[in-house]
Amino acid sequence: MVKASRRRPAAASASAPFARVFIEAVSPELDGGRHPVKRLVGEELAVGADVFKDGHDLLAARICYRPSGETEWRYAPLTYDFNDDRWSGAFLLHRIGRWTYTIEAWTDVFGTWRSGLEKKHTAGLDVASELLEGAMLVEQAARCAKGDARVALDRAAARLRGEDGDGALPSSSVDPPSDAPAVRGARTNVDAHRADVTARVAAALAPELLGLVEQYLPPHGLTRYDHELEVIVDRERAGVAAWYEMFPRSQGTRPGQHATFREAERRLEEIAALGFDVVYLPPIHPIGRTHRKGPNNSLQCGPDDPGSPWAIGNEHGGHTAVEPALGTLTDFEDFVARAGELGMEVALDYALQCSPDHPWVTEHPAWFFIRPDGTIKYAENPPKKYEDIYPLDFWCDDFDALWTACRDVLTFWIARGVRIFRVDNPHTKPLAFWEWIIAEVQREHPDVIFFAEAFTRPKPMKALAKVGFTQSYTYFTWRNDGAELREYLTELTTTEMAEYFRGNFFVNTPDILHEYLQTGGRPAFQVRLLLAATMNPLYGIYSGYELCEREPLHAGSEEYLHSEKYEVRVRDWHAPGNLNAEIATINRLRREHRVLQGRTNLTFHPTENAHVLFYSRDDGAHRDDLLVVVNLDPHRPQETMVTAPLAALGLGADAPFVVEDLLSGERYTWRGPRNYVRLDPAVRVGHVLRVVRA
Amino acid sequence: MVKASRRRPAAASASAPFARVFIEAVSPELDGGRHPVKRLVGEELAVGADVFKDGHDLLAARICYRPSGETEWRYAPLTYDFNDDRWSGAFLLHRIGRWTYTIEAWTDVFGTWRSGLEKKHTAGLDVASELLEGAMLVEQAARCAKGDARVALDRAAARLRGEDGDGALPSSSVDPPSDAPAVRGARTNVDAHRADVTARVAAALAPELLGLVEQYLPPHGLTRYDHELEVIVDRERAGVAAWYEMFPRSQGTRPGQHATFREAERRLEEIAALGFDVVYLPPIHPIGRTHRKGPNNSLQCGPDDPGSPWAIGNEHGGHTAVEPALGTLTDFEDFVARAGELGMEVALDYALQCSPDHPWVTEHPAWFFIRPDGTIKYAENPPKKYEDIYPLDFWCDDFDALWTACRDVLTFWIARGVRIFRVDNPHTKPLAFWEWIIAEVQREHPDVIFFAEAFTRPKPMKALAKVGFTQSYTYFTWRNDGAELREYLTELTTTEMAEYFRGNFFVNTPDILHEYLQTGGRPAFQVRLLLAATMNPLYGIYSGYELCEREPLHAGSEEYLHSEKYEVRVRDWHAPGNLNAEIATINRLRREHRVLQGRTNLTFHPTENAHVLFYSRDDGAHRDDLLVVVNLDPHRPQETMVTAPLAALGLGADAPFVVEDLLSGERYTWRGPRNYVRLDPAVRVGHVLRVVRA
Repeated sequence: MVKASRRRPAAASASAPFARVFIEAVSPELDGGRHPVKRLVGEELAVGADVFKDGHDLLAARICYRPSGETEWRYAPLTYDFNDDRWSGAFLLHRIGRWTYTIEAWTDVFGTWRSGLEKKHTAGLDVASELLEGAMLVEQAARCAKGDARVALDRAAARLRGEDGDGALPSSSVDPPSDAPAVRGARTNVDAHRADVTARVAAALAPELLGLVEQYLPPHGLTRYDHELEVIVDRERAGVAAWYEMFPRSQGTRPGQHATFREAERRLEEIAALGFDVVYLPPIHPIGRTHRKGPNNSLQCGPDDPGSPWAIGNEHGGHTAVEPALGTLTDFEDFVARAGELGMEVALDYALQCSPDHPWVTEHPAWFFIRPDGTIKYAENPPKKYEDIYPLDFWCDDFDALWTACRDVLTFWIARGVRIFRVDNPHTKPLAFWEWIIAEVQREHPDVIFFAEAFTRPKPMKALAKVGFTQSYTYFTWRNDGAELREYLTELTTTEMAEYFRGNFFVNTPDILHEYLQTGGRPAFQVRLLLAATMNPLYGIYSGYELCEREPLHAGSEEYLHSEKYEVRVRDWHAPGNLNAEIATINRLRREHRVLQGRTNLTFHPTENAHVLFYSRDDGAHRDDLLVVVNLDPHRPQETMVTAPLAALGLGADAPFVVEDLLSGERYTWRGPRNYVRLDPAVRVGHVLRVVRA
Repeated sequence: MVKASRRRPAAASASAPFARVFIEAVSPELDGGRHPVKRLVGEELAVGADVFKDGHDLLAARICYRPSGETEWRYAPLTYDFNDDRWSGAFLLHRIGRWTYTIEAWTDVFGTWRSGLEKKHTAGLDVASELLEGAMLVEQAARCAKGDARVALDRAAARLRGEDGDGALPSSSVDPPSDAPAVRGARTNVDAHRADVTARVAAALAPELLGLVEQYLPPHGLTRYDHELEVIVDRERAGVAAWYEMFPRSQGTRPGQHATFREAERRLEEIAALGFDVVYLPPIHPIGRTHRKGPNNSLQCGPDDPGSPWAIGNEHGGHTAVEPALGTLTDFEDFVARAGELGMEVALDYALQCSPDHPWVTEHPAWFFIRPDGTIKYAENPPKKYEDIYPLDFWCDDFDALWTACRDVLTFWIARGVRIFRVDNPHTKPLAFWEWIIAEVQREHPDVIFFAEAFTRPKPMKALAKVGFTQSYTYFTWRNDGAELREYLTELTTTEMAEYFRGNFFVNTPDILHEYLQTGGRPAFQVRLLLAATMNPLYGIYSGYELCEREPLHAGSEEYLHSEKYEVRVRDWHAPGNLNAEIATINRLRREHRVLQGRTNLTFHPTENAHVLFYSRDDGAHRDDLLVVVNLDPHRPQETMVTAPLAALGLGADAPFVVEDLLSGERYTWRGPRNYVRLDPAVRVGHVLRVVRA
């Protein structure tokens, strides 16, 4: 014999109330709500959900959202699409910060009742009972209303009950006796009753009443989705910017001589004129002396060698000090101010590691890894050793103080006007640390941008973006043929990555001079510039790129010969063959054409030659779509037919149309989808085409 | 000036400790862990996860799992696959119930140290400090060990320190002075030192030591995934069964006369001989009298009309009573017992609605919807009315008592030997109710099976499966052409649905006589039987199917003429043209061939004629793969070339091979992938082919 459980439903409902409505598949939602998605200020967040319940009742649903710092929910409606059985809506992200959103749904009892009344009345059924039910709903709404609304609702309820005194029959005579004989007098009575019911139904279905009841009737069976989701709303420059990386010490005019911030400042006007938005500086702090690296990363270092800026700290200070050879903190602040006057921002490098001469080494030895003999461990990746660098132990017993000190480094520079940090090797520090410090800083400074310099496996790179990094380096430098570019850009722009991972397409870095650039000559530099700047709203170059510098440390290496990491390199920025004009043009196009500022509006189109890549940037309204054709082969002319997306461009199937190359100003007449393109790298590597519209 | 926040990291960690390891994308996981997945007892649950942390340390990870009722975790290892940067493992589900599982990961400090030691020693670097670090780890393990293990670990630690007294140098002389002159005596000393270090390294790398340390060293930075996930483990019949639906009142021998359970019992032997596993009965309870429906759902009901069994309840009782015309509760129990003797189970209908004569109507009027005039509302879908049915108000003020009463109905029948409930129209009752009642019942009776009869939109059907229904009706009856079948089966077997949605392919029901059957003659019945039984491990027929009953209420209707829902229908089960032999054969094949019991081992293969469907059921080891070819056209012979998956079958590209049709015993010699098939529905509608292996 089986013993029946005596557990009552209430026991289950004590901890969590039963959901009256089922809400699921809310989008966007990352990893079951564990991580925030990202948007830019001024954008709308489109939200979708599956919402349903048992039976045939009509439902209603809304988005609940609040900007960071607010405690009251705001609401935006969700509307139902029958075709995909899905609810969707959107709300405007009008200011930066970390916003919260979720979904609420409820039974639309008045709408359900109204729809049933209409159907039954149309079918000629008796609706006396329905009218009384409706009156009760209207009265319920009236009790929540005040003033005119209350009066109107009370009056409507009386009308539904037939008690409004407008000559209607008293409600006791609403139902004609079903067995009444069909004599003349009775018939008149029945006709009057019918007319009255029809009038009451019309009153019940009045749109004004619907609006009032929707406003005041409390949602029935209101159910909240069980997760509050987050969206990080960043300022526009977090998502749209052209970056220029430079070593300030190389910005002088005397060959080999270490420049100061005052000298570097003189270059800012030129960089602004090229159209860049962000000037990123490798670490500007005092450089360690112990095991300092010499030219080309040699272990021998001469007395005048400046060392790598990433070996941070010496007797002049650590992460909050300025290398004396660059000048003073005030000089740096002037540099930042001058950049600001020119419409640019300065990004600093945030490299959490220390040279053996860093003040923390003596002040806080407990923050480092200690060997059994009591000495501090240098960095290593066995059997490789990096004796000029001490890594920090982020899980040391004193980690609380260490994390706070790391946070205080950021607040120190924030106080000096810096709002962008390019974070060195974040994948070698704990994800929990980044999640904490980014939230900690952005709580007070939501305008601060964190740019993750992680070149590692895809999953840890994605995880850094999920825990809060605003932007991320990408594999772009290693994606050089058409298939690779198509696959990678498709992943970045059409998968879940688009929700949280903002790639910044650097064409080179002090660590990465790709073989494509080494061997492709000046056209290779033009190709990669054109791709980076027109495929993605965030891109950057490391100085020297505009001079097509391309000599590797040795064959097969991606390191530069005489890398600026270890030497001062003074250049002639106007040397023959420079790309300044091309850069200025492309940066101007990026500012003038909003389609180039989008992150998910890229579509690839067919070509008949694997060397030629063809894609569009779509504005969604045919006003400013751009078509980009690029010859990826820097060595030889390539020709092909490209297939233009006529329907997407709003063009007829067979009419001729004119496209204008925004790079050269030249115009071409195309007809139909397939059109001929020939690109000779000696002349041009690509077109950025605009359809000329009447 | 910006004010730096004084919030310290510890404040953040007070509520949730910082995760040392990042664990995400755990599979299987439904909707962020909100719903359980499903498996059958005896299966393994394969679990995967992304696991990583900062830097280059080696990691280790494991599955933590526990069967329902156990409080201690059990563990199964996860292993790392470099190719997809993913961890995977599995554990055996050895008993039914609701199991919990999650993931733990930690830093493999000993493995990391061991790997670094090996690399450094191989590179000829000094490892004295590393050996001391290793000794400290081994000592830490020793402190957690006892007996022999502790002795062995202590000894190993001493060996690593060079303090084991085996003639090694005292540790103070381990490091030879780096400025020692290279005289003969010193060199000997250095050689001896080298030999000693090599021996200590060998001891450190010994596999025995690795095993001991892994066993006893506490996991470092142990991190638990933030969700505990669930898997419902069902008994085999929940996932593999052939169902037979019949109205017991029609199982007599005298035309038009209401049969009893005793008479119906006589048919069980025949049904068992046909190879069915489950006999499902429409409601067996007393049938309401008020507004009872007559033949063909008419509103006029004669005095001898039996009424619809779904109008439950009259003066003889409600959901826990047996219709007197069927016999007594004891007769029912005997019927169940007899089915059990024959290796079958009886499934009852669980239809939560009441006729106006149900005892609950007078005992608990508060459980129903009340109209303003105090009467109880009948069911309706405006403007349609169902006056013979009162729906229950699952959110009435007294819902606690109502839900408990509904639960008690189930426990009543469970106590009488019933373990399978086919639930009528669950989509018209709250999902929260089903989630509660299924968990409530299965807590004490994990062998109880709930089968959802919901024919509604895809999302609510999926939701019912997610909240706990063991099996679900499907759209199979409406998927008749090849493209529809391919698409639907692909969704059921290859998407997330495979994790939680077990479709039961009924070929007909008392409500669904598809046009394909109405117009396709006997071959149509053969086709649909063959498809249902060989595509899916769960299928069923409603009695009359074997006689190819196909007369609709009217053209365009899926209702049967003289539907058994409203009339007693006594049949000659051996009438000419019956499908008994075909059914017995196919049910035998389903029992003999385990591949036909799988749920996700279906693969479609090409044919060159849209009327011919070709698929395989794969056992993963080429032992018992079956190939099924079906002519979906019941009217005409169809011929085509079918493309066999030779590689998947383990066959060479061009050698001849013999296939045997398990339905007819005939053999065919095929060669290469493309082979000819002709199926004449007058002779046969399909083949179930087995490759004859030497």
